[in-house]
Amino acid sequence: MNITKPTLILDEAKCKTNISFMADKARRHNLELRPHFKTHQSLEIGRWFKDAGVKKITASSLDMAEYFAEEWNDITVAFPVNILEIDTINRLASKVTLNVLVESVATAEFLMKRLKHSVNFLIKLNIGNGRTGLMPSNSETIDAILETTKSADRLNFIGFLGHAGQTYKCRSKAEILKVHEVAKAIIVNVKKQYQSQYPDLIVSYGDTPSCSVADNFEGIDELRPGNYAFYDVMQVQIGDCTYNDIAVAMACPIVAIHKDRNQIVIYGGGIHFSKDRIEKNGTLVFGEVAKSNGSTWHDVIPNMYLRGLSQEHGVVSVPITEIDNYNIGDVIYVLPIHSCMTADLMKRYLTIKGNQIDMMKTS
Amino acid sequence: MNITKPTLILDEAKCKTNISFMADKARRHNLELRPHFKTHQSLEIGRWFKDAGVKKITASSLDMAEYFAEEWNDITVAFPVNILEIDTINRLASKVTLNVLVESVATAEFLMKRLKHSVNFLIKLNIGNGRTGLMPSNSETIDAILETTKSADRLNFIGFLGHAGQTYKCRSKAEILKVHEVAKAIIVNVKKQYQSQYPDLIVSYGDTPSCSVADNFEGIDELRPGNYAFYDVMQVQIGDCTYNDIAVAMACPIVAIHKDRNQIVIYGGGIHFSKDRIEKNGTLVFGEVAKSNGSTWHDVIPNMYLRGLSQEHGVVSVPITEIDNYNIGDVIYVLPIHSCMTADLMKRYLTIKGNQIDMMKTS
Repeated sequence: MNITKPTLILDEAKCKTNISFMADKARRHNLELRPHFKTHQSLEIGRWFKDAGVKKITASSLDMAEYFAEEWNDITVAFPVNILEIDTINRLASKVTLNVLVESVATAEFLMKRLKHSVNFLIKLNIGNGRTGLMPSNSETIDAILETTKSADRLNFIGFLGHAGQTYKCRSKAEILKVHEVAKAIIVNVKKQYQSQYPDLIVSYGDTPSCSVADNFEGIDELRPGNYAFYDVMQVQIGDCTYNDIAVAMACPIVAIHKDRNQIVIYGGGIHFSKDRIEKNGTLVFGEVAKSNGSTWHDVIPNMYLRGLSQEHGVVSVPITEIDNYNIGDVIYVLPIHSCMTADLMKRYLTIKGNQIDMMKTS
Repeated sequence: MNITKPTLILDEAKCKTNISFMADKARRHNLELRPHFKTHQSLEIGRWFKDAGVKKITASSLDMAEYFAEEWNDITVAFPVNILEIDTINRLASKVTLNVLVESVATAEFLMKRLKHSVNFLIKLNIGNGRTGLMPSNSETIDAILETTKSADRLNFIGFLGHAGQTYKCRSKAEILKVHEVAKAIIVNVKKQYQSQYPDLIVSYGDTPSCSVADNFEGIDELRPGNYAFYDVMQVQIGDCTYNDIAVAMACPIVAIHKDRNQIVIYGGGIHFSKDRIEKNGTLVFGEVAKSNGSTWHDVIPNMYLRGLSQEHGVVSVPITEIDNYNIGDVIYVLPIHSCMTADLMKRYLTIKGNQIDMMKTS
């Protein structure tokens, strides 16, 4: 491999192992797996999920759904419907089974008026994450949406959707499981309230931490994790994977070495990694460095991490025992804090075997 | 304007005012202005600088230098030379006056061996920012680089370059001026040590905060600010501009309204804004909302700000007195925390007059 610039390297074998792990788990629990494709944003990687038996997917935008509609025919856009994109919605709905998220009567009424093709909807519930969604106790609005859409020709209620993103604050399996049990109970409880009226309704659930570690999904019908295909340093910190599960790394050239302050500067900044960071022992960390032998990477090097990022510069803190191992012009491998964001910025992958894999282009 | 998705809006008049302000200031102080084009990354916006009399520019990568080499013939890449891109360096150097940054003997030796065309270099000094560069007291390495390159055919020493990025920690004009005076004294002192040997050497200096507010540039020859073309919320917080100077805003559709928690959810997340944030009264802020009247924006609305970003979602904290003014499907204007990063992600501008302006594409 001839790496001259920041390059996102993909370990195809690890990625496929992660994909199989979740497919097997869903099968074992008799759950539909509808993985979130916002992590990889690639038709080619999407085919690896097909090989593992996946038939339905999740996207985070209508643009992304259009990109994947080339090869997938059942897509949930796990984002509150953007009514300004009604033309895209109609174009998509003419082609695939499109499932959208509704959390207001206003949005439901708009869709009923403007849809030209049949679209399914789930009501988005806030099951503790606090990002968006109706409070599960807000049966007034839930009932109003259901009442409004009862007579709809092209807008079909299929269930409730929640994302227990609060698992990202956990720091161990035990903590994840505790959060999962609470979030699951909340959404399954809503299901029970409406099941007699809507016997086919489903509960769609799932963030990577809880889907990775939980083994009790009673009452849930569908899982939507995404990040697990790659994992990343943030997931290691949360406690649902190990460094060894991480399937992507950034290969970055060393452009300066400062022995006087135990730092190395790499070509690789915020426009490559994103500015996502974790706090580790009171220190901000923007990436962790792994040992490498040319075309791939191995174990993480303790205490060797990205301490800061500007637009193109990355400043790496290097243990004094390590710094003599590096020269200007060497390429180091940095495990990203948040692989979804890094992939979105890099727009392509290079596998460790040297194959280039493309992603969707920004429209 | 028909905005349906997150869109980066550019107020051309404000941008041109900012461009003229700095061009006039440099002229008044008899300084070369070599603005940093990493902020806007656009040939078209670059021409507005030409109209203001600018003749030389700064880029943050060799790729960016190649993009701008189409219309500019004197480019400094303000980044430690990435020797792995020697082919790009040679291609550029065959076409334009290329100035690069050297901060090690190893890099100098590599360039001497591999350059096919003449290249100028500046020695990068760490004048307090701590990101990269030699310590100004490290005359041993400075001398070694100068000694090594003395006999070079194609590598010409032209001066010292520093970036007082520590001004980003300031919170008032007075603080910026204090930091500026120290940083300037440090780099001008190095100049004085080498001026007898190299009578033509220059000092290249400048970050947006100090270039915006300082009026004493004695001993400095060239300024390289970039962000001032747009400014942003971070610069307002630093204290070198007002909200009214900010020339870019993100127009984002409202997709959900949660009156129960005084929040609005917009289509506009980390892949649009970047995850840059500031802390304001102990709260993390990822963008601030301005009043708008359709195609442009006005004053910032107090206490209405982006409190969180995920990949595509932005969660806006809304004062209780404001929330009834908004409906699903409205477009709100959000001033970015860090305009360079937001522009890099958005890859194009829409002016408030409705013209699209392109940026360089990711290669």
